[in-house]
Amino acid sequence: MPVLPVNGIRIGSTAAGIRYKGRDDLVVIECQSGTSCAAVFTRNRFSAAPVQIAKKHLGQVSPRALLINSGNANAGTGEQGLLNATECCQILADSLGCEVSEILPYSTGVIGEQLPVQAFKQALPSCLHNLGADADAWERASKTIMTTDTVPKLFSRKVDIAGCEVTITGMSKGAGMIRPNMATMLAYIATDAVIEQPVLQSLLNEATRVSFNRITVDGDTSTNDACTLLATGIAKMAAITENSKEYEQFSSVLTALMQDLAQAIIRDAEGATKFITINVSGGESEDDCLAVGYTVAESPLVKTALFASDPNWGRILAAVGRAPVSKLDISQVNIKLNALRIVTAGEPDTSYTEDAGQEAVSSNDITVDIELGGSDNRVTIWTSDLSHEYVRINAEYRT
Amino acid sequence: MPVLPVNGIRIGSTAAGIRYKGRDDLVVIECQSGTSCAAVFTRNRFSAAPVQIAKKHLGQVSPRALLINSGNANAGTGEQGLLNATECCQILADSLGCEVSEILPYSTGVIGEQLPVQAFKQALPSCLHNLGADADAWERASKTIMTTDTVPKLFSRKVDIAGCEVTITGMSKGAGMIRPNMATMLAYIATDAVIEQPVLQSLLNEATRVSFNRITVDGDTSTNDACTLLATGIAKMAAITENSKEYEQFSSVLTALMQDLAQAIIRDAEGATKFITINVSGGESEDDCLAVGYTVAESPLVKTALFASDPNWGRILAAVGRAPVSKLDISQVNIKLNALRIVTAGEPDTSYTEDAGQEAVSSNDITVDIELGGSDNRVTIWTSDLSHEYVRINAEYRT
Repeated sequence: MPVLPVNGIRIGSTAAGIRYKGRDDLVVIECQSGTSCAAVFTRNRFSAAPVQIAKKHLGQVSPRALLINSGNANAGTGEQGLLNATECCQILADSLGCEVSEILPYSTGVIGEQLPVQAFKQALPSCLHNLGADADAWERASKTIMTTDTVPKLFSRKVDIAGCEVTITGMSKGAGMIRPNMATMLAYIATDAVIEQPVLQSLLNEATRVSFNRITVDGDTSTNDACTLLATGIAKMAAITENSKEYEQFSSVLTALMQDLAQAIIRDAEGATKFITINVSGGESEDDCLAVGYTVAESPLVKTALFASDPNWGRILAAVGRAPVSKLDISQVNIKLNALRIVTAGEPDTSYTEDAGQEAVSSNDITVDIELGGSDNRVTIWTSDLSHEYVRINAEYRT
Repeated sequence: MPVLPVNGIRIGSTAAGIRYKGRDDLVVIECQSGTSCAAVFTRNRFSAAPVQIAKKHLGQVSPRALLINSGNANAGTGEQGLLNATECCQILADSLGCEVSEILPYSTGVIGEQLPVQAFKQALPSCLHNLGADADAWERASKTIMTTDTVPKLFSRKVDIAGCEVTITGMSKGAGMIRPNMATMLAYIATDAVIEQPVLQSLLNEATRVSFNRITVDGDTSTNDACTLLATGIAKMAAITENSKEYEQFSSVLTALMQDLAQAIIRDAEGATKFITINVSGGESEDDCLAVGYTVAESPLVKTALFASDPNWGRILAAVGRAPVSKLDISQVNIKLNALRIVTAGEPDTSYTEDAGQEAVSSNDITVDIELGGSDNRVTIWTSDLSHEYVRINAEYRT
């Protein structure tokens, strides 16, 4: 589906020279007055200055604009970082003629360096001058928020709610320091549907749980993760309420869109050559299924084996065996690699051959199915492999 | 200190061709009758066949011999793996004229392939023919148990116990799949001191807790970890009892030796270019200190930054912030890199400069000090960096 603009949203991008040369790094997303806004943020205790400010502003009024920069995370910057984030918001508020609390700030990039406020100040007029409501504005912004990303992530969906066709469009960025716990770094989704804030927040929470909160590249939860959902309410429809058929319809399309955005991050993960889906079922609890899934997903040995297209399933088995779960009966464990049975009832499957294993992992998309027992609990996690390129990117990131 | 043989221990090595060509891969450690034996094993739930058999045999009688092979882990091998391990023990027991339960088996190498019992059978006579009690026998065995290790790990200490000089000599192996949880893959320590089994076991447990259980390369707990401590009791001394001065003396030297062995594994970690010591203090509990320490130690982003000698301390801060601890007051957090203050009271230290940071991480030995608060809890963890070579080794391991 082509990118669909959202009624009530205008976006401007520009080059402020915050860190990168010769590319855009500053975005303003302006919302129609009365837009509902829901957001989830990182649970990293060293949350970045913009995260702290955005959380503070969010509770007060409905936002007038989102202010986003790449190249500098404004994290680990202490009191000065908070002052700088607030000052940038104030400059934008002055231009738009609104309160500082109506601006939500977001930053992504290097941790531990102060934000160059002067660069914001100089670049904002051009950013506002570029405000546009069309698909191009979304496309340009989705590139502006990239850091080590190699492709922009931008998707649209339409959904019919009680006879009214509404649009949901979202963009995300992220390729490393990815193990969102609450949301992932810089995702922005907008819809023209009519949804009051509390309902919007539960829609976002539910979709986040099975999209951004189910991906991992390196287990490193960012200090800046933030996912924001805007509902401009311009569509001619009754407001969506909780526990309604319309809620379920919207929720299912929102979840699918957010899974697209989350999976796009994994496909563009730093140095990734494989897209790995890990299904874990039958654990004592959903948490146990997640613990096993993340232990496998983040095992450097599993990731390097898959990078090498080596069906070294012993490493998967060893990772399952060390996962921090309350109870594990290995005689009930079944493991499949792209549908090929490798472990059955805790033992090597008798039909397994090395040739079949080799074929199973030769594909770029690999699914690992892990059954722990007979319960109905079931989770899916998406991850990437660990390649030379991951090491190169992260060894050279600041140089 | 040169390698000191231990009275009552004879060791033989030979080439059985289990996997490697042109090198030794099979060791027999024969113990004087009446030798006390203490051991700790992996907590990985998919523990290898030899681990299961060794645990079973250990409770029965004092061991006559340890049988060790490299190249094949006999893990993930199901019922057949248990039969094979037992058969190998039986062949050795027949040669030595003892019960099968007096043999403890150990394996290290590739997971998921059956042990070639025939190769054991053919090679054992030559292994027993080579039995020797001198330092050369220890040195040869310490090389025989290597897999991706590049150097053998073998250390000796002497300790005076109530006027009697006793010897402790130990060897270990391991370079990857290292996050011991109980003990690490294949460490063998022997002493001629007189120590009954229950006392020996508590000495081993205490020393393991602050040596092998404090190292991590990749967070991947092996299926085959096992650390075994033998006391031949040949020294002319009274038995060491718990809560005695002699216990403390022996314990402190044993711990130092086991820390040497554990640190040697980290210095030889797959692809390692840095030796990283992480001290965490002041947490709510020792477990909280460990959680923070391991989160930093196993963060791919911290490890790649240190590989690049990049003082990217924001990644350390982000890792501390995502550690699974019950309570963290970031305003109390202090972080130092090789004694250079980088974070003070949760904010960037005002004296920090990028040049000073660069100098701090340019060394091959890097100490990260993390203070979480005012409690007396304090732990030390040792780890390595994440390099291109780690990925190469683990992508090519089976090919």
